[in-house]
Amino acid sequence: MSQLPEVSEAVEVLGRTPALLEHWLTGLSEPWLHAREGEGTYSPIDVVGHLADNEEVDWMPRLELVLEHGESRPFTPYDREAFRTRFVGWPLERLLARFGDARRENLDKLIELRLRPADLDRTGMHPALGSVTVRQLLAGWTVHDLTHVAQVARVLAKRYRDAVGPWREYLGVLGDRERART
Amino acid sequence: MSQLPEVSEAVEVLGRTPALLEHWLTGLSEPWLHAREGEGTYSPIDVVGHLADNEEVDWMPRLELVLEHGESRPFTPYDREAFRTRFVGWPLERLLARFGDARRENLDKLIELRLRPADLDRTGMHPALGSVTVRQLLAGWTVHDLTHVAQVARVLAKRYRDAVGPWREYLGVLGDRERART
Repeated sequence: MSQLPEVSEAVEVLGRTPALLEHWLTGLSEPWLHAREGEGTYSPIDVVGHLADNEEVDWMPRLELVLEHGESRPFTPYDREAFRTRFVGWPLERLLARFGDARRENLDKLIELRLRPADLDRTGMHPALGSVTVRQLLAGWTVHDLTHVAQVARVLAKRYRDAVGPWREYLGVLGDRERART
Repeated sequence: MSQLPEVSEAVEVLGRTPALLEHWLTGLSEPWLHAREGEGTYSPIDVVGHLADNEEVDWMPRLELVLEHGESRPFTPYDREAFRTRFVGWPLERLLARFGDARRENLDKLIELRLRPADLDRTGMHPALGSVTVRQLLAGWTVHDLTHVAQVARVLAKRYRDAVGPWREYLGVLGDRERART
């Protein structure tokens, strides 16, 4: 009944993201929650909205598609702006709950799949990236959480880019990507 | 009795870091906790050790020094490797508790100082950066937390840099700084 390391390692990280975001962002004031690097980029609250939307339509549905249909049915392209119309006016707490519920359901499903080593090599068709394996999908899902956690830290930090004065040179995150989507 | 925005905004972020790290890292397996970008860089558990050490000797003691002695007494240089000898063999949970306790004490002290606008412009002497203001120190302390949170996300993500395959181009954090100290 034990899970493959590729599954259990992903579950470790993926299972913790909702609680980490909840303890980090709940109660933060508006200037922090709505900080952005520029037009068309995500604020911390946008990241949570994106993760809530993404969780329902991206990684886990794609994994199921691969297992059922292989490369014969390409993934539906993902719309990074969909959350803006889907969750208009939702407060942070509601977005966090939605994300946490969807994540829990998906990880329960993933565990119940009891993937075997051969399943990790099965391939699906990404609409832009081409052929991808289940192994890559599990790793991609995990790193997708982490890239957005790094993004939240970076976006919050940059509110104070000028305020830190000469300390700037010691605070590497302030020099990280500009106007990044993730 | 209300605090200056520079103080209350810093307290918002600084007060949340111990809980976010606790919910993110507690229970993660060793390969995640000890992942590193290379020799001489911090793993996630190193980051917690560093923050626990740093919290007791860096930002708050320096703030008190500025308020008492201005530029006449330069700050003691900070040793980024001190935690390695100070907390040899400490498990994550103990490091997290040490950091959380020290952080709480420091934020209580900061709030009790009831800084006034003029205090924010007072200056101290950084051993490498020269003259710095209290305003810069508060912002620097805040961004210091965030740079290390971003670092943890980046270091965890890079364990899977190759594993994500073609998804790499969508996952910006994988291209962020190499062998960074923060």
